[in-house]
Amino acid sequence: MTASLILAHPYPGSFNHALFSRARDRLSALGAVCHAHDLYAEGFDPVLTVAELGSGVSDDPLVVQYTDELLASELLVLVHPNWWGQPPAMMKGYIDRVFRMPHAYEVLPDGRGGTLPEGRLGGKRAIVLTTSNTPAGREKEYFGDPLASIWGPCIFGFCGVDAWQRVNFSVVEASDDATRKRWLDEVDGLMEAAAPG
Amino acid sequence: MTASLILAHPYPGSFNHALFSRARDRLSALGAVCHAHDLYAEGFDPVLTVAELGSGVSDDPLVVQYTDELLASELLVLVHPNWWGQPPAMMKGYIDRVFRMPHAYEVLPDGRGGTLPEGRLGGKRAIVLTTSNTPAGREKEYFGDPLASIWGPCIFGFCGVDAWQRVNFSVVEASDDATRKRWLDEVDGLMEAAAPG
Repeated sequence: MTASLILAHPYPGSFNHALFSRARDRLSALGAVCHAHDLYAEGFDPVLTVAELGSGVSDDPLVVQYTDELLASELLVLVHPNWWGQPPAMMKGYIDRVFRMPHAYEVLPDGRGGTLPEGRLGGKRAIVLTTSNTPAGREKEYFGDPLASIWGPCIFGFCGVDAWQRVNFSVVEASDDATRKRWLDEVDGLMEAAAPG
Repeated sequence: MTASLILAHPYPGSFNHALFSRARDRLSALGAVCHAHDLYAEGFDPVLTVAELGSGVSDDPLVVQYTDELLASELLVLVHPNWWGQPPAMMKGYIDRVFRMPHAYEVLPDGRGGTLPEGRLGGKRAIVLTTSNTPAGREKEYFGDPLASIWGPCIFGFCGVDAWQRVNFSVVEASDDATRKRWLDEVDGLMEAAAPG
């Protein structure tokens, strides 16, 4: 099994880093080939260029590498904090630049003069690990939990990903050591369930 | 009246640019002081740094300038395409880096050992102009229109903005000249309604 793991958090001591490391270590121990990238540490540039707009090519070696690895992976693990109901710009730029046509989807003629998108990421599954400082009830009732729509239908559904799940860990700022240990153990379980038996 | 206008689209010939220019020109003609920024043209870096995390200071002159202008503005106009149910990374980075505490919001003790966020952008209104190639029905029913939650409760509501509206123009790729002219005229009307009489 091959997996792409992507992390976007500026602070190297963040709980996001702990989630990411745990996922990578567990998958590696299970025998998976892991392409694991800390976008901040690698200095990824999240700005899609005008040349990349509607084009499958890029002159950024990291974009090419991440795209190749995504296409070669059966499992995608994304780790980021909830900032404004969205991923940080760094993670958004990973999507903008790597999930491009014709790699992640294609736009085909619909036979009636219009176009129809077709996902190209079939055969893959995705797990998104997010953190927040908002209690679950307030996130859903007041903020509308846009990350559920963003990662679900807008990205994975659109690209034809077979299955996806998002697990949110909150409230991080109020969590004690025992809670954080339990959350990290939960990551082990998620990776074990995703890896072939 | 003072207004901040922010644009994020990589292609200088985009309809987003036309919307942005029309809004700026109309507001200027109405006597508003316009701080208008094409983030791509200005080479804005959307990556929030670790030093900016939880801090009100920044060593990026553009971040400082955009923040000062936002705080001095009664009206905020944001223009961007709908990419994956979200703004492009470039616009997301504007939010990540400019809408920081203690400028856009503050986190105060709640008196019970926890914290409570307090918006700091009262007295302002916001208009978001977005474009997409998805019909309105499919956007709402299949994708869940996360931009409504993102700009509404997650950003403007959280920061205490007095009032906001989002106007989406779609389907751009299938629009003819007459439709685009009507859309641009609609922008005039929005700016006239937002400017003092």
